[in-house]
Parts: sequence; structure tokens; C-alpha cells
Amino acid sequence: MPRSVQDHRQAVVDLLSGISGSKGAQDLPLLEALGAVLAVDVRAPLSLPPFANSQMDGFAVRSQDIPDDGAQLSVAEPVPAGAVPAPLRPGFAAPIMTGAMIPEGADAVVPIEKATPDSFPQPETPDAVVQLPPVKPGTYVRDAGSDIAAGTAALAAGTLLGPAQLGLLAAFGMMTVQTRKPLRALLVTTGDEVVEPGQELTAGKIYDSNGTLLEASMRQAGLGVVRAGINDDDPGSLLRLLRRHTGASEDPVDLILTTGGVSKGAYEVVRQAMAAQPVEFVHVAMQPGGPQGVGTFDEVPFLGFPGNPVSCLVSFEMFLRPALSLVHGAPALRTSRTARLGESLTSPQGKHQVRRGTLQGDGSVRLEGGAGSHLVHALARSNALVHIPGDVTELPDGAEVEVWML
Amino acid sequence: MPRSVQDHRQAVVDLLSGISGSKGAQDLPLLEALGAVLAVDVRAPLSLPPFANSQMDGFAVRSQDIPDDGAQLSVAEPVPAGAVPAPLRPGFAAPIMTGAMIPEGADAVVPIEKATPDSFPQPETPDAVVQLPPVKPGTYVRDAGSDIAAGTAALAAGTLLGPAQLGLLAAFGMMTVQTRKPLRALLVTTGDEVVEPGQELTAGKIYDSNGTLLEASMRQAGLGVVRAGINDDDPGSLLRLLRRHTGASEDPVDLILTTGGVSKGAYEVVRQAMAAQPVEFVHVAMQPGGPQGVGTFDEVPFLGFPGNPVSCLVSFEMFLRPALSLVHGAPALRTSRTARLGESLTSPQGKHQVRRGTLQGDGSVRLEGGAGSHLVHALARSNALVHIPGDVTELPDGAEVEVWML
Repeated sequence: MPRSVQDHRQAVVDLLSGISGSKGAQDLPLLEALGAVLAVDVRAPLSLPPFANSQMDGFAVRSQDIPDDGAQLSVAEPVPAGAVPAPLRPGFAAPIMTGAMIPEGADAVVPIEKATPDSFPQPETPDAVVQLPPVKPGTYVRDAGSDIAAGTAALAAGTLLGPAQLGLLAAFGMMTVQTRKPLRALLVTTGDEVVEPGQELTAGKIYDSNGTLLEASMRQAGLGVVRAGINDDDPGSLLRLLRRHTGASEDPVDLILTTGGVSKGAYEVVRQAMAAQPVEFVHVAMQPGGPQGVGTFDEVPFLGFPGNPVSCLVSFEMFLRPALSLVHGAPALRTSRTARLGESLTSPQGKHQVRRGTLQGDGSVRLEGGAGSHLVHALARSNALVHIPGDVTELPDGAEVEVWML
Repeated sequence: MPRSVQDHRQAVVDLLSGISGSKGAQDLPLLEALGAVLAVDVRAPLSLPPFANSQMDGFAVRSQDIPDDGAQLSVAEPVPAGAVPAPLRPGFAAPIMTGAMIPEGADAVVPIEKATPDSFPQPETPDAVVQLPPVKPGTYVRDAGSDIAAGTAALAAGTLLGPAQLGLLAAFGMMTVQTRKPLRALLVTTGDEVVEPGQELTAGKIYDSNGTLLEASMRQAGLGVVRAGINDDDPGSLLRLLRRHTGASEDPVDLILTTGGVSKGAYEVVRQAMAAQPVEFVHVAMQPGGPQGVGTFDEVPFLGFPGNPVSCLVSFEMFLRPALSLVHGAPALRTSRTARLGESLTSPQGKHQVRRGTLQGDGSVRLEGGAGSHLVHALARSNALVHIPGDVTELPDGAEVEVWML
């Protein structure tokens, strides 16, 4: 009985859930924390805005100075942003710029467009006056703390730090932030047929695409990646390689990820190397990416992806990436939306099929290539994963499907 | 008459369209090219797959050897992945692994599950035989070039390089790739009221949030960012600062971006500094982010964003980021989808309002904070921009809106 996609994702979540918390935190300058995860709750060290300020270029007034039919007021000293203005005397209106502090005594701002004349007098003009319409107290005043009050919760531990979150921390005057240390993963591709790019390609061999594809995906997801190159189909050499990065090593990794050697053939190097380890090799009801390994190798969490590049990408997107989002707080989950199929399709009964496609401007999705897991060129044309649930065996042109934007 | 959002976006596209092509290309190792843009068309230097190979673990056969009622065939030498097999003799079936080369003479693969017995004999077993069902020619064979044929167009110049595209280049055996050089932008925040994080905050001052927010956004979009700190409201010092990074400087930037000083107040440092330059200061029919500057400063493309952090982010997302996507090829456009409003709202007639919100699991979007452009804490809780077109003045709870996922 194959394992469901949901059950296997949960198994990956369970596998990772112990690691993230144990890694501890590091203090990073704000911009180096872009894409990292906040390690601690942050309370506002000051109110935002820190003081009542004007939302408009205009005149700060005492609202009670202006009756219903308007009033002519004397023009006070202008209040530029960044200055501490003198208190506003009754009968006066102070030219005030957006963001400038509301003078003591003022309680509203009349925008310059509503004033007569509708431009500011030259500074130092003697006895300047301005005609203003009535205004309710509070108009165009941004109160101190109206965005957030000092001492209240601002960002929770586990928040993914993007531009807006870092911008908020800067608004608090912070220069650094406590972030969760990124997880470090060892990435090993396997197979006697696999050759490093740049080497000579002899008959029967293929270049390693998985290493680049997965390292790029893992880096984008915020993982630190240790590349161990390609292991051939000798289980002994794989064991030695893995042990250089686990328990006894100086700098053990947090996660091991292999590709290939997890199926039911005669030369399944990853299965063979894991024979004495608590690793399950299961078949997930998913196409591509059915054969999967999950467990621990010398107590380090281990995932074994299948060997084809499309299977690797689908395995990463369906299991490891969402598990990292849930457990570690980064990366953000893929954006999901619906789209209309640009063509009909069939899908095997009982398997969640993940096709690759390109979302078009008209909201339809064009499938790229067939179902084959070796179609890396078709994958490279795609910008979306198209989900066909396990109980669906055919869909007509125009049917609505769930897509994840890559 | 305010300028439409579309017209201003086109003005930014026009401004940038000259730069991207003039920057030239650089050769980068594949993984350093993650997020960069391909500078040249790439043709497939080899076919993928390079040779016909098996899609399954099973037996490679000559299909004509198996009549409709099946046949017992002699078991040949197994074919592991990476090996060059001997030609398949008539009457034989060769155990073959996924990805292994189809032997000369064979034209189909019978999966191991359909064989009797349904497991491979031990190697060297004398006189081993296997009972196999009939199979059509081509079954479970991945033909050479079935993903892409050598010499055909693989990726076009202008392609954004993500994991799948880099994986394809690796499958071609490439170690490096010609990428468009990233654009370098000078970022200057202005205002007498603005103080660097880490400094003392005196009365009337605020910490600079825009610099961090925009540098993070620009970095995520693939721009190189030169930070010039904060300029006060003195136009002369702004001119001197900008000239250190333009024409006569050793390393002129490709783009200048300022924040603040573009409105109609009495102290608009950016407007004043640009008085002798071909820079338009316009009001875009958008809220927030209405006041915008666009033009050139000493022939370097220039954009002047308003001074509030939410206005800065909205300006970046509405104008600069999509213009970069169109002109330079990176970053990817924001994913757009529809969502149901979680509450009613009102919006000013004639202005495209951009509210901030959080997309919920049920497909509704919760608005974060009000319309105010100073609400950086509310922004930091959001994961989406919510678009209210200019001709819409109110929407009920549950109305469908377009959202862009941040």
C-alpha cells in the first residue's frame, strides 16, 4: 500500500522538527538577515510614530479657533520635519510639512490645498495671514503610537524576515536581529552513470543535473548546502562519505539528502548503504517522485530522493520545502492558485500527479512536456507545478486545477 | 490631472530600457548565476537523454520475441546504469535498471513487476529463464533526444535562471553561464527628520526605515545596491552626494533612487536638487505613493519615491520591480491571484488604492492596518498587496479583489 503525499510530508516534518530549535540563534546585521527567521519575540522599543505628526503639507491649527464659516488666522513660524516646534498660540496657524511634529496646542491639520492662498507665505513675511475652513479635531494628525505602541508585541519568533519586517526593525532603531541559524544539509548525488559537468561524457553516462538543481533550490530556501559530489554505486564508499559529515566529524551537518538508489532495482546504493540504519524506503502515491527514503543515518536526519531530476524537484517542493516552512519558518510556502487547464490530461488512478506547466496571462496553464520524470528541458520552461489529485484520472481542457507558482 | 498607474509604469520601463542591454554579460559558475538572467541564447550541445535508456527496472527485450500469450526467455547479463551493454541476442531478456542504456537489438522494457518470477535472478545464475508478457515496441524506452535534441534551442536570452534552468545547463555539462550583469543602483534616503538606526533619537526625529526596506527589496530583485546613507534637507549636499556616483566618478551607478522630498511642501530637497535636471515630478493616481519623480540626473536614470515607508514599498512593487522584470528579465513578476475581502472597504474615487493584507488559508484576505502610508508595523504583518482599482469607491465584505503575493 503506497503512502499518501500527506503522510509522507508529515513524516518529513516529524524528522525535521527536532533540528530547527536545537540550532540556536545568531545576531545578524539587518540586511544579512534577509530571508532568515526571527529567533525571538520582538516588542516595540518605541512607539511608531514616536510623536504626533502631520499627515499632510498644510497648516497646524487649534480646531476650536475656526468656526463653521472658516476663519482668518495669523501665520506662525513654519514647522519643518525633524524640528521641535514652539507651542501654537491661539489665533495662529503654523505651516507644517508631512511628518513634522504637531506643535503643542494644535490638534488638527488643514491641507495646503484647502487654504486661501493655497501656498505657504515666504518665511519671515511680516503679518502674513491665511483663510482656513473648519476642521474636526484629529484631522490629518498621525497620533504617537497609532501604528504600534512602545512595549507591545511587534514580531513573533518564527517570523520570516523580508523587506517589510526588516524595515520595521530599522524603524525601531535596531541595527541587528537575532535569527535562527540556518540548517546545513549535505547533498550527495549517486549513480555509476552520473558524471560531473565539465568532465568527458562517455557512452551510457549522463551529466549530473540533480546536484545543481537541488543545491539551487536548497539555497533559495535558505539552507546551507555542503556538496559532496557524486558517489558511484558502491555502498561502502557512500557510507565512508556520509560519515565524514556526521557524528565524529568536526562540523556535522543537520540533514543528509541523497538522490538516486532508492528504488527496487538490483543496484540501489542508498538502500544498501542504509541497511543497518533506521531508514524507511517507501513508495509514495505520487508521480513522479514515488520512491522515497526517510529516517536517520548515524542519528542525522536523512532523506533519499529518487534519481531523476524532475522527481528530485518535485520531491523537494512537495516534502522538504513545505516541511522547512512549517518547522523552521522559512522559506515562505509556495503561492497556490487555481488555473484552467489549457488541454485535457489523464492521470493514473490512486497517484497524486504533479505535472509541470506555464501559467499564461489569461489564467490558463499550459502543460510542459509529458509526465516523464527525465524531462528536465520541459521543466526548465515551466513556472508552476500542476496538481492532479489521486482520485482524478482524467480532466478536460478548461478544467480548474490547483497550481503552485515556482 | 494625475498620471495613471499604467502610464507611470511605462515611464519607468522607458527609463530603464536603455540600461539593461548596455551593461554587457559576465560568465558565472552555475550556482552563482541563481536569480540572474541569461545573456545569450543557449542551444543544446547534446541530446537529452543522450542515449535511449530504460524508464523502469525490468527486462530489455526484442518485442517480436514475445507472442501474444507471452514467452519464456533466457536471462542475459544485467545492464546497470552507466554501462555500455552487449547487443541483446534473440531469445534473451536483459535485466536493466532505470536510466541504463537500452542494448542494441532491444526495443522495449517489461517492468520487473510483470515478470515471473518478479525479481532479478542472482548474477551468474546458470541457465536462468524468465516468463514475460507481450510488450509493444518502444514501451518504457526513453528515446535519445526525447526531451531535447542536440542543436535545438534550449533557453532564450532573457530567461531568468532558477533551479530548473540551472539544472538543465548542468545536464548539458556546462559549468558556467553567460549572464546579464546586474544593475547597480544608488539608494539615498532624505529628510532632516531621519536618523540612522543605532543613533540617538531626539524629539521630532524618526529612524530611517526606508533605506533598509528598499535595500532589502532591491537585493531580492537582483539589483546591486550602493547605500549613500541619509541626506538632510539641503539640496546642495544632495547634489554633491549624487555627483560622487555619476558621470565623473570611477564607478558610476546605473540608477539613482531617492526617498522623500518629492511632494509639494516648502522643503522638498529632491525637487530642489533636480531643478536643473530633466526630471518630471508627477502625481500618480495611486494611494499611497502618489508623488513620484522620474527622469535623469546627469544622464543617469533617476526615480524619486515619496518619503513614507509604505509609499516606498508600494512604489517599488508597482513601478520599479515590474519594470525590472520586463526590461532586465529579473526578478519574476509577482504572483497575482484573486481573493475574497475579509471585510468591507472604501477607496477614494479616481485613485488606484494599494492596501496591505494577509492571505488566509480559506482564500480570503485580511486587511492589515488602514490606508495610512506610515503604518510600517501593519505592513510587516502583511504578505500581499490588495488592489482596488481607481473607479471603485467601496467594496463589500466578501468581494473579489486582485492580490499580489509579496
